[in-house]
Amino acid sequence: MRPIANPNFAESVAASFQKQGAMHLIRATLPVVEHGLTEIHVPHWDGVEQQHGFVHGGIVGMIADSAAGYAAMTMAPAGASVLSVEYKINMVAPADGQKLIARGRVIRPGKTLIITTAEVFAVNDSKETLCALMQQTIMVMHGKAEK
Amino acid sequence: MRPIANPNFAESVAASFQKQGAMHLIRATLPVVEHGLTEIHVPHWDGVEQQHGFVHGGIVGMIADSAAGYAAMTMAPAGASVLSVEYKINMVAPADGQKLIARGRVIRPGKTLIITTAEVFAVNDSKETLCALMQQTIMVMHGKAEK
Amino acid sequence: MRPIANPNFAESVAASFQKQGAMHLIRATLPVVEHGLTEIHVPHWDGVEQQHGFVHGGIVGMIADSAAGYAAMTMAPAGASVLSVEYKINMVAPADGQKLIARGRVIRPGKTLIITTAEVFAVNDSKETLCALMQQTIMVMHGKAEK
Amino acid sequence: MRPIANPNFAESVAASFQKQGAMHLIRATLPVVEHGLTEIHVPHWDGVEQQHGFVHGGIVGMIADSAAGYAAMTMAPAGASVLSVEYKINMVAPADGQKLIARGRVIRPGKTLIITTAEVFAVNDSKETLCALMQQTIMVMHGKAEK
Repeated sequence: MRPIANPNFAESVAASFQKQGAMHLIRATLPVVEHGLTEIHVPHWDGVEQQHGFVHGGIVGMIADSAAGYAAMTMAPAGASVLSVEYKINMVAPADGQKLIARGRVIRPGKTLIITTAEVFAVNDSKETLCALMQQTIMVMHGKAEK
Repeated sequence: MRPIANPNFAESVAASFQKQGAMHLIRATLPVVEHGLTEIHVPHWDGVEQQHGFVHGGIVGMIADSAAGYAAMTMAPAGASVLSVEYKINMVAPADGQKLIARGRVIRPGKTLIITTAEVFAVNDSKETLCALMQQTIMVMHGKAEK
Repeated sequence: MRPIANPNFAESVAASFQKQGAMHLIRATLPVVEHGLTEIHVPHWDGVEQQHGFVHGGIVGMIADSAAGYAAMTMAPAGASVLSVEYKINMVAPADGQKLIARGRVIRPGKTLIITTAEVFAVNDSKETLCALMQQTIMVMHGKAEK
Repeated sequence: MRPIANPNFAESVAASFQKQGAMHLIRATLPVVEHGLTEIHVPHWDGVEQQHGFVHGGIVGMIADSAAGYAAMTMAPAGASVLSVEYKINMVAPADGQKLIARGRVIRPGKTLIITTAEVFAVNDSKETLCALMQQTIMVMHGKAEK
C-alpha cells in the first residue's frame, strides 16, 4: 500500500458522502473509512426493493460503485477529487438480507487511475452472504478538490 | 429480431416495474416498452443527486441496468422471468440534465442468455447528451414467471 | 466527431501495428484505418483454433481490443500514445468463419480517456455474423509518442 | 467450495487444453490444475510482443480468460462443457517479465453460471508483479461434454 497522501482522508470522504442526496435517499451509511478501504451499509426497507422483495440490483450496484470510489478517494492527494470512470459487476446471489454491506478496496493506486474492487454482502443475523462482485476504474482529478 | 414470444410482454413488463419499490423511490417511470427496447425516465430532483449536484452515478447505473433488463424481458417467453447476471458501464459525461433517459436494447436474444446494451442521456430542453454506455448479460429463467 | 488531431494518424497506426509481434503471429492484418474507426482481419487457420475448431475466444478478444485501441489512436494528438486501460467483451456466438473481422470505433473521444466499442464478425462467403461485442476504456498518454 | 463433481477433472482439462491450437501458438502451458484453480504460463518471446517489447495485452487477456475458464471446468460435472460468456479485464501494469502467469479461480460455482476471477503476473527472477485483473462469467453446458 502507498503512503497516506491526504492525512485528512476520513474527513474528506465523510464530507463528500454527507452531500450525496442519493445516499440519504436509500438510507445508506458509511461506517468504515480506512486507508484503501470503505464500507457502505444499507438496511433492507421497502424503498430499496425490487419486484420479488429482495434489494434491487440497482441499489447493490450503487453502493458497490460508491464504496469502491470512496476507497479510492482515501488514497488520493488532498487537492484532488475522484471520478468513477467505469465498473463491471456480477450479481452472484439475490440480495436477500436484513441489510447489505458493500466493501470497497483499492487494488492498485496509480497516479491518474486507481483500480478497485467491491464485494456486496447480504447480512442475516450477522451471517454474510456474497451477493455481488465488482471491478472498477477511478480517475484522479488532480487540483480539483471537492468544494 | 426474433418473433414475439410473449404477446402480452408490455403488460408483463409494466406489472413488474410497478412492483419495484426502488423505481418509485427515485421517481422513475417506464414510458416506452417495445419489442426489444424500453426507456426509463428519471427527473432531476435533490433525492438523486451526488455531491456536485449532478445525478448520482449509482442512479445512472440503476436505470441503465433496469431498462436493458426490461428490454430483455420483452423478448422472453410468457412463462419465464429474467435475471441481470452482470453489466459493465462507462460513465462518459456528468449526468447534468433536467431529466435522464435510459434506453435499453436487446443485441442478441439467446434462449438462455440475452445480451443487451443501454445508453443513458441527460436531457436539457429536449437536447440529449450521452452520459453513460452499458453492456449487460441477462439470464432467462424458463418456467419461472414473475408472480 | 472531433477534428483530426494528427493528420498522419494512418501512418502512425500502421507503423505501430507493424511492430506488434503478436499480430504477425496470429496472421492479423489492419486493412482499414479511418478517423475513429479501424478493422483488423484474421484468417481462420489451425494456429488460432480452440478445442472445437472455432477461432479461440482469446484471439477474438485480442483483435477486438487492438482494433478499438487503434481506433482511439486515430483520434489522439501526434505527440501522444494510447494505452488500453480495460475492456469488457461478450461472446455472443462461436467464432465460426473463414475469417474474422474486428471493427473498432470511438464512441467518445475525451482528452485523457477515450471510450470505444468493437464488434467482431465471423465471415463466411462474405456473410458476416456477430460473434462478440466489446466496450473499452483507452488512456491517452500526452507527450509520449511511440518510438 | 463445492464437492468435486468430476473426479477426472484434471485429465478432462488437460485434454481440452491440448487441443487448443491457439495455446500452442503462443507457447502456453498449463502446469497447475486444481479443484477451482488453474495456472497458465507463457514465456516472453518475440511472437507475443506488442510495439514496446512488452507482452501484448491481447495475450494477457487470452491467458486470463483461459485460466479462469479452465478453473470453472474443474468444477463442472463430467458430462458438461463450459463456455466463456463474457469477461472484463483491467490492465494494471505493463506485462514486463521473463514470463507471465495467469491464475484463474472460481468465486461462485453455480449450476448454470460460474463466476471466476483471474490475476495475471509478470515474473522476473521469481518476483511476481500484478499486471492484470479479470472478472468472468462462465456458462455450464450440461450434457454437452467435449469430444
